[in-house]
Amino acid sequence: MKIRAEVLTEDTKEILTKLGVPEDAAQTVAEELVRSNLMGVDSHGVLRIPRYVKQIQDGFIKPDANVKVVKESPSTAIIDADCGFGHVAARKMAQVVCEKAAKTGIACALSMNSTHIGRAGAYTEWIARQGMIGFAVAAVYTQGPLAPYGAAEGKLGTNPISWAVPRYGADPVIMDGATTIAAEGKLRAYIQKGMQVPEGWIRDGHGNNTTNPEDFYKEPKGTILPIGGLNAGAAKGSALSIMCDMFSIALANDDYWTALKEGGKLKAENGFFLMAVNPEFFCGTLAYEKQVDNHARFIKDAKPAEGFDEVLLPGEFEFRQAKKKEQEGIDLPEETWNGLVSIGQKLGCKWSAGLETVKAKEFVQF
Amino acid sequence: MKIRAEVLTEDTKEILTKLGVPEDAAQTVAEELVRSNLMGVDSHGVLRIPRYVKQIQDGFIKPDANVKVVKESPSTAIIDADCGFGHVAARKMAQVVCEKAAKTGIACALSMNSTHIGRAGAYTEWIARQGMIGFAVAAVYTQGPLAPYGAAEGKLGTNPISWAVPRYGADPVIMDGATTIAAEGKLRAYIQKGMQVPEGWIRDGHGNNTTNPEDFYKEPKGTILPIGGLNAGAAKGSALSIMCDMFSIALANDDYWTALKEGGKLKAENGFFLMAVNPEFFCGTLAYEKQVDNHARFIKDAKPAEGFDEVLLPGEFEFRQAKKKEQEGIDLPEETWNGLVSIGQKLGCKWSAGLETVKAKEFVQF
Repeated sequence: MKIRAEVLTEDTKEILTKLGVPEDAAQTVAEELVRSNLMGVDSHGVLRIPRYVKQIQDGFIKPDANVKVVKESPSTAIIDADCGFGHVAARKMAQVVCEKAAKTGIACALSMNSTHIGRAGAYTEWIARQGMIGFAVAAVYTQGPLAPYGAAEGKLGTNPISWAVPRYGADPVIMDGATTIAAEGKLRAYIQKGMQVPEGWIRDGHGNNTTNPEDFYKEPKGTILPIGGLNAGAAKGSALSIMCDMFSIALANDDYWTALKEGGKLKAENGFFLMAVNPEFFCGTLAYEKQVDNHARFIKDAKPAEGFDEVLLPGEFEFRQAKKKEQEGIDLPEETWNGLVSIGQKLGCKWSAGLETVKAKEFVQF
Repeated sequence: MKIRAEVLTEDTKEILTKLGVPEDAAQTVAEELVRSNLMGVDSHGVLRIPRYVKQIQDGFIKPDANVKVVKESPSTAIIDADCGFGHVAARKMAQVVCEKAAKTGIACALSMNSTHIGRAGAYTEWIARQGMIGFAVAAVYTQGPLAPYGAAEGKLGTNPISWAVPRYGADPVIMDGATTIAAEGKLRAYIQKGMQVPEGWIRDGHGNNTTNPEDFYKEPKGTILPIGGLNAGAAKGSALSIMCDMFSIALANDDYWTALKEGGKLKAENGFFLMAVNPEFFCGTLAYEKQVDNHARFIKDAKPAEGFDEVLLPGEFEFRQAKKKEQEGIDLPEETWNGLVSIGQKLGCKWSAGLETVKAKEFVQF
């Protein structure tokens, strides 16, 4: 099933507004979800909608949340997401850190009471497009699937790290990755496609290596290996994941550990630390963008390894996919699409009612 | 050969002062080297002295450098290391970012013209001991041994990332690791001990996997694999290494790529980006240290995996080693010790002249 990005965005937006999400917030969330699909990060795309819908219906996500700065200084801010969509709060954070870093050279913001923020890389990319360096770590407010180095049980989230730098005359160079060997969303995407995951990604709840992503979700719950898998890098991946918690959840001082211990109800899903560094306070923005370009070319000049046609920069593959999909449409698994249609019909969305017409008119069919 | 840390520090200091390094700078460098040995990071310990001595004699390290802030704002600074010891400049940076973050909540500093800084973790640890979050990335000013993801040749340095957070009533939680699967210094340490490295660490210059660390140094030069080795985490390790360059070398705008391309002489060895975040501007310092402690306990509570007695936090193993070695002495390979003695004798150091007496009196023998 191929669908044009604009159409998918409109459909998603209608679902959200039907659930009481104000126009501008619905637009933000829809854009972020579809942008994830465009970038090839299906795990953070519209696949998430059924879960978000349920979270709104369960009262976990507050549709008409009031995102606001609750504490600030010239270089720092705490943003209260008011239990609304994390995407909306995270965009606000990106704006705030850029405004502050424009004046002070470096600024960071921290979220409180935020639900899922989507792709961390969306916000660092935005910062890079303002000519600054973006850096982000996020953490998940739950006893996550990553077993810390030396542990047999999951404790940490898939906690992503992202950074992005502006490159002269080209898309930013951007890294956005879980501190596990793969994001949990990737496991969901493999299940939807009916595929096995590569070896060394996951263990079942008994500590055995497996390539069946379903094993991860069975009780007792499995674990995802840190970056490094079973090699010497595992301790580093584990440490990076701990860093994400320490930078975001611990710094916000939400009642995370107490709630976990006492079986309390958590109001938040993601802790998010976002930072902007302004090159104007160092070598100058233009000089920096040119240095990034120099370095990008230096790396791309490397002789490709066997099995590679060229050396790609972090983010380059994703940007190419996005450009292609903007032209050719987004390829959605039937299951994802059917999930959206079913929700759309229940909510009485216009697009799902006139589905056949819409399909004939708007969809790019191949 | 076991030697007490204080004795090794004094011996190292005398070598440096004989070469024209002022008293305080010599003290700093000696302390940092010996602290690396105490923490079990032999690759960054006194093993480095022969190389540093040669760099001073070659005019690469300026012994009487004048480290100074050359550009600053309330939250940022550039420190010119004046081609002196990187350790001295990096300590100054740690001090500057803490002073600034005390007032603004977050601050970062960048080095220029710095030689080897030693362990990045030394400076983030110092920041954590001031009650703040320390974060650092460093890069090496050379066409390094890390092959970017998809490349057959080395382009990137072993570029370390370090972060440290203050923990209530305990040592900081601290990560300090190369973005390669192992630091290059580790390969040197394996060679000195006559050992093979684990599989998946290095390739020879023809792209073949090998466990012989000597293969790495033969021409054509070998490569070190990124965190992740040959698994899905390799692209992330490669991206993190690129980040280190982009945050430090590119932001300093030193004439790195021009010099590399045109075979020019580089004045610097390490680019260093160091940052402090002040929890007082978020949840408050005491609350933060207690949250870190909560999280530390939550992680350590995990059931240990097979082959592990307990789950250790990042840095915990190193701090335990340091405490043990402070009591029992530092175990140096004969080759390292003989290298120091030979230099000490050439320079006419008192300690090396009266070696037998010193040995009988000061060394802890087991």
